[in-house]
Amino acid sequence: MKKIAVILSGCGVFDGSEIGESMMALLAIDLYGASYSIFAPDKAQAVVMNHLTGEPMDERRNVLVEAARIARGEIAPLSSFRADEFDALILPGGFGAAKNLSTYASDGERMTVDAEVRQAVLAMHAAGKPIGAMCIAPVILAHLLPGVKLTIGKDPRTAAHITAMGGVHEATEEAQVSADAVNKVYTTPCYMLNGVRIGQIFQSAQALVKAMLA
Amino acid sequence: MKKIAVILSGCGVFDGSEIGESMMALLAIDLYGASYSIFAPDKAQAVVMNHLTGEPMDERRNVLVEAARIARGEIAPLSSFRADEFDALILPGGFGAAKNLSTYASDGERMTVDAEVRQAVLAMHAAGKPIGAMCIAPVILAHLLPGVKLTIGKDPRTAAHITAMGGVHEATEEAQVSADAVNKVYTTPCYMLNGVRIGQIFQSAQALVKAMLA
Repeated sequence: MKKIAVILSGCGVFDGSEIGESMMALLAIDLYGASYSIFAPDKAQAVVMNHLTGEPMDERRNVLVEAARIARGEIAPLSSFRADEFDALILPGGFGAAKNLSTYASDGERMTVDAEVRQAVLAMHAAGKPIGAMCIAPVILAHLLPGVKLTIGKDPRTAAHITAMGGVHEATEEAQVSADAVNKVYTTPCYMLNGVRIGQIFQSAQALVKAMLA
Repeated sequence: MKKIAVILSGCGVFDGSEIGESMMALLAIDLYGASYSIFAPDKAQAVVMNHLTGEPMDERRNVLVEAARIARGEIAPLSSFRADEFDALILPGGFGAAKNLSTYASDGERMTVDAEVRQAVLAMHAAGKPIGAMCIAPVILAHLLPGVKLTIGKDPRTAAHITAMGGVHEATEEAQVSADAVNKVYTTPCYMLNGVRIGQIFQSAQALVKAMLA
C-alpha cells in the first residue's frame, strides 16, 4: 500500500487549509487504495480570520492544533516528517499555504517558505518522489524548485509571480492536472478557479492522486 | 433541482460538526445533482476542545462563526431557516450535535434540543419532507419525533438511550442506512462505528442522500 503524507496549514480557507480540498485529497487517497499520514507545523497561525465576516479576529491559534480538527486528532508535527517513510507528498490549498506555510500572501514573488515545509519538499524531490499541490499551494513549489512546471488555474497575477520566480505556468481548467514529469510535480487549480462546486474539487483531487500514483 | 438544508454545529469532531461527515454530505448532495444551503445556530459553543490533545481549551468560540469554516463563509444563521424553501434536511454528526445542537453529551436520555434546531426539524417533519442524520445526530430525532426508527450503529449505551426516549433502534454496519418510511427519517452510523475510513463515510453519505431523494 502506497503511503502519502499530507501537509495541512490550519483549518479553514481564509487562514488555514481549505477544508474541502483537504478532505477530497484524503478521500481520493483512500479510494485509490493508498494510506495517508497528516502533518502540520507546530507554530502560531499568521492570522485568525472570522469566516462568517471575512474580517481578522483578535485571537491566537496554532496551526497544528487547528489542523488536528481536519485530522480528527490523528496528526503529527511536521518536524517529525521523514521522507523515507512516504511514497508521495500532497499540499492542499487555502490561504494557510500562503500565510502559514509560506509568506506568499504578503510577499508575492519575494515569498519565503517555512523551514520545515522547505525541508519536507526538498527531501521528497531529492528522493525522486511525487509531490502534489492544490489551489494556491503550487507557489511553494515554484519558490523551492526553480524551473518547475505547474498550474494555479488561470489567474494572471499569480501566474506572473510564478514566472518571476523561475517557474513555468500552465493554464488549466477545473479537474485538470498539470504534470511536470521530470520534477514529478503534479498540480491542480481547485478553488483558484471561480464558481467551482465541491464535486469538481473531488474530481480534481482524484485526478491529482491518480497522476501521482501512476 | 432539489434543495437540501444542512445544519452544522461548529467545525471539528470533538466540539462541533465532524468535518469529514459534513464534507461527504455536501459532496453527495452535489454528485446527486441537488444543491445545498448551510445553516448553524448563532450562539456560543458549549466547549472548545484542543483536537490535538483531546483536552478542553480556555477559549470561547461561536457555533456559526466556526461552522463558516466548513461552509467557506456561505452560511446563514439557523434562525433564518424556512422549511418551505427546502426539499430535505441533513444533520451531520460530531460532538457538536450532542453539545451545541442538543445536550445529549451531558444529559443522555434526559437531553434537550436547541430551540432553533427543534423548530427546523419539526417544521420539515410536519411538511412531510425527508430528514437525514449521521453518526450521533440521530439522537436529536429520537428526542423530537417519538416512535421514530433510526440507527446510531451498534453502540449499546446510545441505543438504550434511544429506546428510553421512545425511539426504535436498528443496528447497522458502515454504509448502511436505516429508513423510517412513515416519518421520512434516514440515518447512517458513520464514525459511531470503530475503524471507519473516509471512503466509507463517503459511501454512507451517498447512501443517505440517495435514500432521501428517492
